[in-house]
Amino acid sequence: MNIVVVGLGSMGYGAASNCAKAGLSTWGFDLNSASVERFKAEYGQATNDWNDIDVIDAVVLFVVNAQQAESVLFDSPLMSKLSADATIINCVTIPPSKATEISAKVLDAGFGYVDAPVSGGAGKAASGEMSIMASGAPESMSIIKPIFDAISANVFDLGAEAGNGSRMKLINQLLAGVHIVSTAEALNMAASYDMDLQQVFEIITKCAGNSWMWENRGPHIVEGDYTPLSTVNIFVKDMGIVTDEANLKGVATPLSQTALELYKEASESGLGLEDDSAIVKILAQKSGVKVPGMD
Amino acid sequence: MNIVVVGLGSMGYGAASNCAKAGLSTWGFDLNSASVERFKAEYGQATNDWNDIDVIDAVVLFVVNAQQAESVLFDSPLMSKLSADATIINCVTIPPSKATEISAKVLDAGFGYVDAPVSGGAGKAASGEMSIMASGAPESMSIIKPIFDAISANVFDLGAEAGNGSRMKLINQLLAGVHIVSTAEALNMAASYDMDLQQVFEIITKCAGNSWMWENRGPHIVEGDYTPLSTVNIFVKDMGIVTDEANLKGVATPLSQTALELYKEASESGLGLEDDSAIVKILAQKSGVKVPGMD
Repeated sequence: MNIVVVGLGSMGYGAASNCAKAGLSTWGFDLNSASVERFKAEYGQATNDWNDIDVIDAVVLFVVNAQQAESVLFDSPLMSKLSADATIINCVTIPPSKATEISAKVLDAGFGYVDAPVSGGAGKAASGEMSIMASGAPESMSIIKPIFDAISANVFDLGAEAGNGSRMKLINQLLAGVHIVSTAEALNMAASYDMDLQQVFEIITKCAGNSWMWENRGPHIVEGDYTPLSTVNIFVKDMGIVTDEANLKGVATPLSQTALELYKEASESGLGLEDDSAIVKILAQKSGVKVPGMD
Repeated sequence: MNIVVVGLGSMGYGAASNCAKAGLSTWGFDLNSASVERFKAEYGQATNDWNDIDVIDAVVLFVVNAQQAESVLFDSPLMSKLSADATIINCVTIPPSKATEISAKVLDAGFGYVDAPVSGGAGKAASGEMSIMASGAPESMSIIKPIFDAISANVFDLGAEAGNGSRMKLINQLLAGVHIVSTAEALNMAASYDMDLQQVFEIITKCAGNSWMWENRGPHIVEGDYTPLSTVNIFVKDMGIVTDEANLKGVATPLSQTALELYKEASESGLGLEDDSAIVKILAQKSGVKVPGMD
């Protein structure tokens, strides 16, 4: 099975390297030549030119958004390189309606499609322990099992219909995106009282205010380290997907709307490429509070 | 040591019963005669009349709010019953500034004061495993240690200054109150897609969207069971404390403000005495969605 992982960012690089380590014939593909050179040096096969690859049995998409996914799939030579029963595995966070649309086009072209957004961040991608929220035809799921085995610790099989995976990811992002902001809001409030933020972090971790994001992003704020593991701009995109879908359906998502406005404000203030926990700087500025890592 | 636990609601009843079980001489006090009769039947001593009690060495306050706490302490015969080095343990969630004010009055009157809000809910209160965010003079903390040992699994000692405990509780309530709403918002969105809510609950619990409140309140919504363990009205009060303090200090708390508005709307719609997870019904109504437990 000849696999191409498209998009060698923090998630895609981890996935591609774990495919290679598992002994699968793996190509890394990225327009960025530094990423291509790095993957080539570490794992052997990488390119930014489709002509370098003869036949592709599986494509794993880790590009940034739906537009890039569509561009790779439908406006590049990729489709002409696919073998007869090749499978597209789309790990990009996209609107569920878009997953349904892309899946239909790929199935119409005679190939397999698995809607497969992931959770776990760069750390779990690197260690091959991502969670995958997957939906697609059973035969496609079966064909790509060696790839999922290489890159993930949990595969949630959500049935045959593309869109199911993306809907579950949307629910996860709604919560994750709100909880990054609640973490920032709570630590900014604590900073306004001159509380010991490390102590606040440790105590809340044992109380009812705890969350996955509190445990994961809280230390970034306590240490004032906004080195991007996942950027503000990713949540501008993902909370945008949540609120666009909600608005289309007439579903009330007041916390998501509030969080999205803050992510946008942070991005417009020049924080878009910092870690998403840097949202705390926007709250601190509004409050006349100084949080760690602010000038 | 003669202890009086004032306020035999779900938290106070649990604390009082664990004091009694630990062999401490414990009175239950409540204006509600049904609670008094129940505690008397189960543990021996309870009343709604201060004249029934001769000398008090420690008071544990579990009333509803700051106003009730002040009324019990300063507008009842309680103070006249206190022994020479009696200690007031205030477990009520109140504004930090109010904790400082009440502490000063109690210390001025010659008694000890411990600012001691709790976390863990009715379950942990019943099992004697609450977490206590405590601040007060070391000698007071030492005197009341047998009481804390009886009612709690974790005591976070936050120093001598009253207010420190209440500030930590405020940070916890900010997060807890927002996360109950985010749990409701996510499950309402999932319901709008006709997703299997039990499956959503189980998968998100293993993903980055997870929180203490998701795990605790999520099942109430999935099962449509809004039997009150902690009511909507408690969060109208607690998020009100968060936003009042934030507004006084000019601190931005946009998620807390958004959550408070929903708690208020739920309370005004007649859901005030239902479980706080019933906030999902307000979101569902706004969205034209049907969630479990709705007519």
